[in-house]
Amino acid sequence: MSIFEKLESEVRSYSRGWPVVFDRAQGSRLYAEDGRPYLDYFAGAGALNYGHNNPVLKKALIEYIERDGVTHALDMFTVAKRDLLETLDEKILKPRELDYKVIFPGPGGANAVEAALKLARKVTGRESVINFTNAFHGMTIGALSVTGNSMKRHGAGIPLVHATPMPYDQYFDGVYPDFLYFERLLDDSGSGLNEPAAVIVETVQGEGGINAAGIEWLRGLADLCKRHGILLIVDDVQMGCGRTGPFFSFEEAGIKPDMVCLSKSLSGYGIPMALTLIRPDLDVWEPGEHNGTFRGISPAFVTAAEAMRTYWSDDELEKSVRAKGERIGAALQGLVDAYPEAELTAKGRGLARGLEFQNGELAGRVCAAAFERGLLMETSGPDSEVVKLLPPLTLTDAEVGEGLEIIDASVNAVLGK
Amino acid sequence: MSIFEKLESEVRSYSRGWPVVFDRAQGSRLYAEDGRPYLDYFAGAGALNYGHNNPVLKKALIEYIERDGVTHALDMFTVAKRDLLETLDEKILKPRELDYKVIFPGPGGANAVEAALKLARKVTGRESVINFTNAFHGMTIGALSVTGNSMKRHGAGIPLVHATPMPYDQYFDGVYPDFLYFERLLDDSGSGLNEPAAVIVETVQGEGGINAAGIEWLRGLADLCKRHGILLIVDDVQMGCGRTGPFFSFEEAGIKPDMVCLSKSLSGYGIPMALTLIRPDLDVWEPGEHNGTFRGISPAFVTAAEAMRTYWSDDELEKSVRAKGERIGAALQGLVDAYPEAELTAKGRGLARGLEFQNGELAGRVCAAAFERGLLMETSGPDSEVVKLLPPLTLTDAEVGEGLEIIDASVNAVLGK
Amino acid sequence: MSIFEKLESEVRSYSRGWPVVFDRAQGSRLYAEDGRPYLDYFAGAGALNYGHNNPVLKKALIEYIERDGVTHALDMFTVAKRDLLETLDEKILKPRELDYKVIFPGPGGANAVEAALKLARKVTGRESVINFTNAFHGMTIGALSVTGNSMKRHGAGIPLVHATPMPYDQYFDGVYPDFLYFERLLDDSGSGLNEPAAVIVETVQGEGGINAAGIEWLRGLADLCKRHGILLIVDDVQMGCGRTGPFFSFEEAGIKPDMVCLSKSLSGYGIPMALTLIRPDLDVWEPGEHNGTFRGISPAFVTAAEAMRTYWSDDELEKSVRAKGERIGAALQGLVDAYPEAELTAKGRGLARGLEFQNGELAGRVCAAAFERGLLMETSGPDSEVVKLLPPLTLTDAEVGEGLEIIDASVNAVLGK
Amino acid sequence: MSIFEKLESEVRSYSRGWPVVFDRAQGSRLYAEDGRPYLDYFAGAGALNYGHNNPVLKKALIEYIERDGVTHALDMFTVAKRDLLETLDEKILKPRELDYKVIFPGPGGANAVEAALKLARKVTGRESVINFTNAFHGMTIGALSVTGNSMKRHGAGIPLVHATPMPYDQYFDGVYPDFLYFERLLDDSGSGLNEPAAVIVETVQGEGGINAAGIEWLRGLADLCKRHGILLIVDDVQMGCGRTGPFFSFEEAGIKPDMVCLSKSLSGYGIPMALTLIRPDLDVWEPGEHNGTFRGISPAFVTAAEAMRTYWSDDELEKSVRAKGERIGAALQGLVDAYPEAELTAKGRGLARGLEFQNGELAGRVCAAAFERGLLMETSGPDSEVVKLLPPLTLTDAEVGEGLEIIDASVNAVLGK
Repeated sequence: MSIFEKLESEVRSYSRGWPVVFDRAQGSRLYAEDGRPYLDYFAGAGALNYGHNNPVLKKALIEYIERDGVTHALDMFTVAKRDLLETLDEKILKPRELDYKVIFPGPGGANAVEAALKLARKVTGRESVINFTNAFHGMTIGALSVTGNSMKRHGAGIPLVHATPMPYDQYFDGVYPDFLYFERLLDDSGSGLNEPAAVIVETVQGEGGINAAGIEWLRGLADLCKRHGILLIVDDVQMGCGRTGPFFSFEEAGIKPDMVCLSKSLSGYGIPMALTLIRPDLDVWEPGEHNGTFRGISPAFVTAAEAMRTYWSDDELEKSVRAKGERIGAALQGLVDAYPEAELTAKGRGLARGLEFQNGELAGRVCAAAFERGLLMETSGPDSEVVKLLPPLTLTDAEVGEGLEIIDASVNAVLGK
Repeated sequence: MSIFEKLESEVRSYSRGWPVVFDRAQGSRLYAEDGRPYLDYFAGAGALNYGHNNPVLKKALIEYIERDGVTHALDMFTVAKRDLLETLDEKILKPRELDYKVIFPGPGGANAVEAALKLARKVTGRESVINFTNAFHGMTIGALSVTGNSMKRHGAGIPLVHATPMPYDQYFDGVYPDFLYFERLLDDSGSGLNEPAAVIVETVQGEGGINAAGIEWLRGLADLCKRHGILLIVDDVQMGCGRTGPFFSFEEAGIKPDMVCLSKSLSGYGIPMALTLIRPDLDVWEPGEHNGTFRGISPAFVTAAEAMRTYWSDDELEKSVRAKGERIGAALQGLVDAYPEAELTAKGRGLARGLEFQNGELAGRVCAAAFERGLLMETSGPDSEVVKLLPPLTLTDAEVGEGLEIIDASVNAVLGK
Repeated sequence: MSIFEKLESEVRSYSRGWPVVFDRAQGSRLYAEDGRPYLDYFAGAGALNYGHNNPVLKKALIEYIERDGVTHALDMFTVAKRDLLETLDEKILKPRELDYKVIFPGPGGANAVEAALKLARKVTGRESVINFTNAFHGMTIGALSVTGNSMKRHGAGIPLVHATPMPYDQYFDGVYPDFLYFERLLDDSGSGLNEPAAVIVETVQGEGGINAAGIEWLRGLADLCKRHGILLIVDDVQMGCGRTGPFFSFEEAGIKPDMVCLSKSLSGYGIPMALTLIRPDLDVWEPGEHNGTFRGISPAFVTAAEAMRTYWSDDELEKSVRAKGERIGAALQGLVDAYPEAELTAKGRGLARGLEFQNGELAGRVCAAAFERGLLMETSGPDSEVVKLLPPLTLTDAEVGEGLEIIDASVNAVLGK
Repeated sequence: MSIFEKLESEVRSYSRGWPVVFDRAQGSRLYAEDGRPYLDYFAGAGALNYGHNNPVLKKALIEYIERDGVTHALDMFTVAKRDLLETLDEKILKPRELDYKVIFPGPGGANAVEAALKLARKVTGRESVINFTNAFHGMTIGALSVTGNSMKRHGAGIPLVHATPMPYDQYFDGVYPDFLYFERLLDDSGSGLNEPAAVIVETVQGEGGINAAGIEWLRGLADLCKRHGILLIVDDVQMGCGRTGPFFSFEEAGIKPDMVCLSKSLSGYGIPMALTLIRPDLDVWEPGEHNGTFRGISPAFVTAAEAMRTYWSDDELEKSVRAKGERIGAALQGLVDAYPEAELTAKGRGLARGLEFQNGELAGRVCAAAFERGLLMETSGPDSEVVKLLPPLTLTDAEVGEGLEIIDASVNAVLGK
């Protein structure tokens, strides 16, 4: 029995589908300890947008560690934090005319969500939050309450309350008007819907099955929130940092959320880091009212700032993401067309792409076939029925081609053509 | 206006008491950007037990980064995780005859607590948890529900339920028997106490004011839990990893908790990492029922394993912590005796020490005076009335002396002798 | 200042619209202390289906009191309870092929609802309940949680949880398919909807604005509940006891709810009494697990049994209710047609009828005008925009005519024709 | 199989211990249908303080019914309500210098409690309530949340939250100071106790086992509430209306609660009726914010007013209750002394008396033995270990003697002397 089997809890999941021991990683590739390379279309579930061990960030990181820069600093002032804030302001906020204030909520995306929900409730004096069908926002009780997956919800062991799910865009395949039910409940003082403090939304639902909300739907949601005095929280933990093209996934829609949650690829190097951005007038916290040990991990600040300077000083990455995303999208559509009887659906935006099968068993077999061929992809969606492609944004055109070939072969192997 | 004032949320707290910008750190010292050194009796709120940028860990860390070891791996198998688990088993669990299974709950202590509470509820089918007066377990909704501080609780914006506080050891100054109220409520089927899934406890309450539970009290609590079929969770996030002497703070009491939460100094280098250790028969999770992005930060695993090999292969650190702790305790008692009119109290165990003042204003002034003299200490306790000493465990005897001199001078300056 | 103004809480409401002191009542009429008669189209909010002080029931009641029959008996066996149960079985259950068991839940409708919800949760092990937009089920916390009106919900002072509102029949004016949203959420394991223990529904929403669910919708709901293993609770507190024609309002739909709540007109004389009827296999209570002081009010049992014998031994009352209801419905439709610019809507079924105005102000003025003319009617609906007609089922044809004339005049006075 | 067995839910309880069918009742006696008389030391669980079918009240009741006085009137003004309010003011409030306003909360005691809790939360903006060990306040979710009995709490099917139990007077047999734990938690901002809106208390816990709080304890509680800005709610549903001697059970302590809940014997005749009395400045309800169908049952108002006139115009009943109570208390103490090895305890105040056994089995056997001998008594307490005596206040001295003789014989039969 391996030490993993002996010691690690049954809750582990990824290692079940990919039963090898990984050792090194570089760019778009992971290497098992036997040296076998795997092309990574998973990218740390979106935490490695700039690739594994990105050399530019690696250089800055090692320099910082070597010179004994402060590593851990809670919310003290540090040179590293100053550089981060200045770079965030200069490269990200100002060019987009955003004047957010910054909360350091803790190390992970769930912390960014918990801080946003707490603040939204404190500001409005209301407890209830609107989430969307098939949302994923994290595993801590506050974040889990607004997450859709029933298996994960059961893990809470307590009834998850204070959240009401509304249909995400296209939940009824476009047959019914957007927000019909939501706005009717809000307008009707007898509806029984507790007045919501906030709406929390992903612009593209990654865990939910690569469901990409339309631009008009997002605008409609922002308008609805404004009309009803509800705070709009965009959870950009997975779709931010360029995953869909622009730094913030909501830019294309031209909306300005009241709060934004960032994490995953924020540090750029896979080191835990998260931010909650808030409208300045919402900054009503007492000092220390929300805190935590891992809010000032300077190595993450160093790589985050370096990533912003490297990738967000111009629009090259954004253009490249769009181009590669469209290429992948077209290839997936090709598969849809090639297997009409399988009733596949190609989904997604930018480099968050999905291929939906009729059931999770098929999608799982495609991922297993890809793994055998040296490609890492996971499934998502309520029934794990969507093959999910989240490659590093920095993958080369050759790696796009390589990945698509393996996907093609894997689908072929499973659908039996 | 600095970038900090412009961009950072009002929720920031440490930077208010220490309004300098830190740059570098080594061992027991932080250096401001103007080069001024500060002796650190705060140690990242207990996250830096082995000192800042510990050279042994730093070497292992840089080597790992330089050779492009996998950085971010969710719960995939990695060489780094295997080494961590083997070292944990070899250096920590086996010598203590503990057979825990290991959950990687997410990056921070609150994740370790959330996972423990979720699992305790799932296992028992009960929702309620017993916490203790002045407990601190984290800021996410699940963890915050079992945290005492009312200001932090108000930050939740929702009523925090499913937890009932019981008096911590010495809450009534030893006048009344331990667990009198708690056990009476459990034994009385008409008491109105919801049957608890678990008790969560810190052996020494750091944020609560350096309240050290007695050995007998801890044993009594473990017995009570066993008698009533309640799971015992020790939150060793701050007091584990040698803070009180032994690796686990509960070792001295000879108890075996059903679950243990670890974080803070676990990685040893200040990089986010947390573990929840559980009795093997409690491992009833479904795969993926609890997950999260930052559960496989290999650099943290590397430094964690290296720290275990370096500091926990023998009992030198443990002995040294006890010795230095006793020296500091004696010095604090000296201050208590020197200022009888001030009614001070010396508190703590190992290198978690406190000096309690009659109010928070005095304690705050002492910390401010110490800061002026180049020493970092924070206050804790419900009214911030306790000056809290959490130096790195690796501080030298000279640094003990240096710190005590500054504390002496600072108390002197405030109490006006 | 009257004793009412001096002593009675501001929460009083009916006395605001009808500022007279009532003294006597008989049949369809109330008499103020100055002798002025009022035709009663309100009927104790549905509690007086057989009219005020119905002489048949009155005779039985006085006889029972005079002979010192047990008045108050909790859940002891009494002659009066035996007669009630036998009559219920003989006149109501058996003819309808219903084999419900009977809970005596407490004196009022809210008790019947609380008992049903508690039992549904106990039986299924789930906490969540589905209610409908504009539902009204009572003012105690359990019943209020499934009630729609936001003003009344605010009165709780705690967040009302464990309930999710679904659109009632015609909520979107028939444009979208029934249960579209509800069933989609149930079928989607990622929807975020907590699995419901039960659905609670009124077949006609009285307080919600006299919204009558269609027969097909009710059947569809019953089917949906069966398919998904959700218990169906019909709250027949206001619409039962013949209000819509048959004894149970759901009879027309041919469905058999898992639980039925009865109260209001159950005793027939206005004395508090309630029942919860349950499918026999759901009777999993421990003895005394639900109890209460006023569960055995024998005078109410006496009048209830007498009412069943008198009015439910044949179908005369049912036919008469339908006929009078249709006459009133036609008259209301006449008003709709007569005032096209006012965009009125005629609503309801049986003798639960409503005339919806464009706003609450107009509806309130119509009720005030009717009061001046000697007719009692109240408004209902989320904005009090519906004039609600709930006359005694026993009103005479002449009283129908009299009431309709006053309504006609009142609408005329307000809409200015 | 009887109709009871066929139709009535298993939740029934009293009929299990007293398997006869009662028919008539008068004064202190119930008569089974076979004519057998039972001396009633149960009195409708305290709902029949003036005896069964009290002739003075009966006369007023029949007169009212015969003259067709309004029976059911929601919260409309009626002649009957005016008389009730004037009599309440004249006979009860003014003589005691109480200026409460009156809420008609619904028909039963649970409604009175629900209204009080809702209003306390609305007034203070806090959700949490302090209840006491072994409290009983009702079976609806709001009332059940502050009730102690674990079996009844399990019946809720949802976690009961927003309440924290504190030790009732003598919970630790007087060894520890009153309110030690409660006030320490309130004073400690780190205690984790949610700030309470209100304390709800019974001066004598009937269902909890006839635990009579001391006068000093009640005063201490009232002081504590005042000091901390917490509303004090006295639930006088069972102990009010003279059960302990004075009309309100708290009079002896000289305290003025912020809210008082009344029901049970309020109508005097066993007809459902309840009131919530509130400090005038707390009357912040919106009209209709709390409502309900059975808030204006005029027959109950008629008997209630008549009972106040008859029994509360002087202090005769109060004196008589005290005298009879002391006689019974002395007799119970005699049993305690006569059976030293049985370790009995005599408990109670006024005509709420109890004899505590070492376990519920013994107490149950005593009640069964008494039933065989023609005396009705029930058990109470968390383990049903207390034989509870709640005779009508109007029982004669002869009936006192008769009852005590049966009790004596029954205890003798069980304890085997």
